[in-house]
Amino acid sequence: MPSKNIPILRVPGFKASGISCGIKKTGALDLALILSDNEATVAGVFTKNRVKAAPVLYCVKTLKKARARGVVVNSGNANACTGKAGLSHAEQTAAAVECALGAEKGSILVASTGVIGVPLPVDKIINKSRSLSVGLSGNGLRDAARAIMTTDAYPKASFRTVRINKAKITIAGIAKGAGMICPDMATMLAFLLTDADIDARLLKKALAEAVGQSFNSISVDNDMSTNDTALAFASRMSKCRIESEGNAFTAFKKALNAVCLDLALMIVRDGEGATRLIEINVKGARSKRDATMAARTIAGSYLVKAAFFGGDPNWGRIIAAIGRSGAYFREKSVGIWLNRVQVVRNGIDTGMEKKAAAAIKVKEVNATIDLGSGDAWARVWTSDLTHDYVRINSSYRT
Amino acid sequence: MPSKNIPILRVPGFKASGISCGIKKTGALDLALILSDNEATVAGVFTKNRVKAAPVLYCVKTLKKARARGVVVNSGNANACTGKAGLSHAEQTAAAVECALGAEKGSILVASTGVIGVPLPVDKIINKSRSLSVGLSGNGLRDAARAIMTTDAYPKASFRTVRINKAKITIAGIAKGAGMICPDMATMLAFLLTDADIDARLLKKALAEAVGQSFNSISVDNDMSTNDTALAFASRMSKCRIESEGNAFTAFKKALNAVCLDLALMIVRDGEGATRLIEINVKGARSKRDATMAARTIAGSYLVKAAFFGGDPNWGRIIAAIGRSGAYFREKSVGIWLNRVQVVRNGIDTGMEKKAAAAIKVKEVNATIDLGSGDAWARVWTSDLTHDYVRINSSYRT
Repeated sequence: MPSKNIPILRVPGFKASGISCGIKKTGALDLALILSDNEATVAGVFTKNRVKAAPVLYCVKTLKKARARGVVVNSGNANACTGKAGLSHAEQTAAAVECALGAEKGSILVASTGVIGVPLPVDKIINKSRSLSVGLSGNGLRDAARAIMTTDAYPKASFRTVRINKAKITIAGIAKGAGMICPDMATMLAFLLTDADIDARLLKKALAEAVGQSFNSISVDNDMSTNDTALAFASRMSKCRIESEGNAFTAFKKALNAVCLDLALMIVRDGEGATRLIEINVKGARSKRDATMAARTIAGSYLVKAAFFGGDPNWGRIIAAIGRSGAYFREKSVGIWLNRVQVVRNGIDTGMEKKAAAAIKVKEVNATIDLGSGDAWARVWTSDLTHDYVRINSSYRT
Repeated sequence: MPSKNIPILRVPGFKASGISCGIKKTGALDLALILSDNEATVAGVFTKNRVKAAPVLYCVKTLKKARARGVVVNSGNANACTGKAGLSHAEQTAAAVECALGAEKGSILVASTGVIGVPLPVDKIINKSRSLSVGLSGNGLRDAARAIMTTDAYPKASFRTVRINKAKITIAGIAKGAGMICPDMATMLAFLLTDADIDARLLKKALAEAVGQSFNSISVDNDMSTNDTALAFASRMSKCRIESEGNAFTAFKKALNAVCLDLALMIVRDGEGATRLIEINVKGARSKRDATMAARTIAGSYLVKAAFFGGDPNWGRIIAAIGRSGAYFREKSVGIWLNRVQVVRNGIDTGMEKKAAAAIKVKEVNATIDLGSGDAWARVWTSDLTHDYVRINSSYRT
C-alpha cells in the first residue's frame, strides 16, 4: 500500500497552496492553487466524455497557446451540466485568482471536481482568492494534494528526480479520484510539475503517452467523468533543455511515466471499497487493439472483479470476457496464469485450481492471458468489486 | 413480481419431462427433454461469444436442416471450454436420447448450463436417457422448466394463445438465467414451443426479432455467456398456416414477442440480488444505433445501477454514461425523467430531486432520456446493483 505521507514535493519554479473556502460543508480543504513563478509551458489531456464540464471547456480554449502561470482547483462541486452559468463561473474563478495575483488575463487554468448539476458557489471562491495567493509556498503542494480530494482515502503524490546530460530535473505529481468512483463526486484530476526546459510540443507528446500508460489504463468501474483532467506544467528552471526526440526526451518520458503510474496505481488501490489491486496482462494478441480490447473487457467485468474479491480463481469468467471482447483468438490456443499458476493450457483446465486459489489470496493479483495469436500485448489495472463499493455508491447524497 | 406458479403449458404436438440424473449434488432436477410428436420446424439463436460451448457448436451444425424432434438440456455443467472431449460428450448425449426414443440420428438438439471448464459427466445422462423418455408427458414442461434452473430463484414460463384467421395457435416458453449471473453457472436458455404451421424461414425471422426485443435487451451484468441459446420449435399441428409476411405472421410475431418479453423480464427480476426492475427508454436519438448505444451504456453502468439500489435520483451518472456511450447528442438538448418526474431540462437540473427520490423508491423504475436529436429510440431493462449481487458472485464455488 502507498504511504499515507506525502513525499517532499518541491519543484524549482513552483509554489502552491490549499485552503478551505466553504464549498465542502465539513470545512475540509477544498481550494488549491498551483503557480509557476514565471510563465510555464503547459500541456493538457481531458475527458473524452461528450458531456464536458465547464472548467474542461475553459481549459481547452485557454490552452491553445500552451502557456500559463498555473491552475486553480476546487473540490466539492464539479461545475458540470451547469449550462452557460457554469462557463461564466469558470471564467470568474480564473479572473478572481488572476486579479489576486496581479497575473495576466488568461494565465490561470481551472479544474473542478465534486457534485454534478449543482451551480458552483463561485462567490466562496472569489472571496478566498486573496487568501489562496497569500498562502502560496514552495512546500504548498502537500496542501494542494489534500484540497483536491473528494472521497479519496488519502492524498496522492509522487516525485522523481533524474539526471539528464549532467543537469538535474525534477518531476512531481499530485492526483485524486478514479473515474466516477463516488456517488456524485466525479473525476480523475492529475497535475504534473517539472522544471525541465522542454518544448510545448514534446511536453504534450510525453503527457499523452504517460496518461495512456497510466490513468487511461486503470479502471475502477468503467465510468468516465465529465471532468477528467491531466495538466503538465514546465517551469523551464532546469538547465536541462529538451528540444528534440533524443535521449534526453526518452529519459524525461521515463520519469514522467513513472510518476503517472505511481499516481494511477494509488488511485486504483484507493478505489471505493477495493481490497485487491489486479493487474491484467494480455499477450500473444494479433494486434495492440485486440490486446487492449481483451484486457479492458476483463478489467471491466463485474463477475471477474467479484471473483477476485472472493479469492476465487474462476478462469471461466476470464475466458468468457475475452470471448465477448471482440478480440481475435482461437479458444484452443489460450493460456491463463493467476499469480504465475497456470490454470488454463490450450483452452482447457489444468487442474491447478486449488494452488491458484491459494496464490491469489493476496493484496496484488496478476492475471496473465496468452491469446497465442501474435506478439501484441496490453496491460491494465483494476480493483475488486466489493460490498463496500455497493455501500458507498448506493448511499444517499448528503 | 412474477407468479411462482407455472401456468398451464400444454402445446399441441409437444411432450416434455424433467428428472434428476445426479449432476447437481443436491439431487435437484437437472435433466430435461422437450419432444415434438413429429418432426418439427426449428430455429435457433446463439451466443455471439467467440468462446462457444460444445452444445452450442453441436446445435449450430445440426440446425442447418431446420428440422428436429426436440432438445435435451442438462443443468449443473456448461460443457464449455472442454475441448474435443466436450464435443464428443454433446454428441453422446444426443445419441443416447435418440436411441432411447427410437428417433432418427441428428433429430435431438443439446443445451447445457452450469460450471465452465469441468468435463460433462456424460455417463449420468446416458444412464438416465430411458427414464427421461419414459417420463414424457403433455404436462411435462413444468418439470422441464425446473430442471433447467441453476441459481434461478423460480422457474420461468409464459404462455399465449392467439386466434389467427379463425384458427387458434398456442405459444409457450420456458427460460432460465440471465447472461452470466452466477459464480460460474453460465447462460441464458430459452425454449419456445408453438403449434403454428409456420415456414422455417419465417420462424427464424420471428425468433430473431423476438430475441432482439427481449433477451438481447436485458442486462444484469453485461457479461455474455458461452452457452446462451434460444430455440423455437413449431409442431405444425394448428390449422393456422403462416407462409408469408402478412397479417398472420404479424399476429404470430406479436404473441412470440410477448412470450419472450415475459420471460426476459422474469430473468431481470430474478437477477442476482436484484431489488428493482429498471426500464431505460432512450428517445429523440439521431439513429437506432445511437439510441441503443446510449440505453445499453446507462443499463451497464455500475454507478447508475448502484444509485437505483439506493433510491438516489442521481441523473449526473446517467448523463455521464450517455456522454461516454458514443451516441450523438447535444448536452443542452437533453431531458431526463425518472418515473415521470422531470429531473433534467435542456441539459440542466430542474430542482425536482426530492420529488424524484420519492417517485423511484418502488420496485419498478422507468428512466426516460430524450436526446433531443431525432426520432430514433431504444428500450432496455436492467436490475439494480446490490450487496447481494456482490455476496453471491464473490462466494467460493462449491
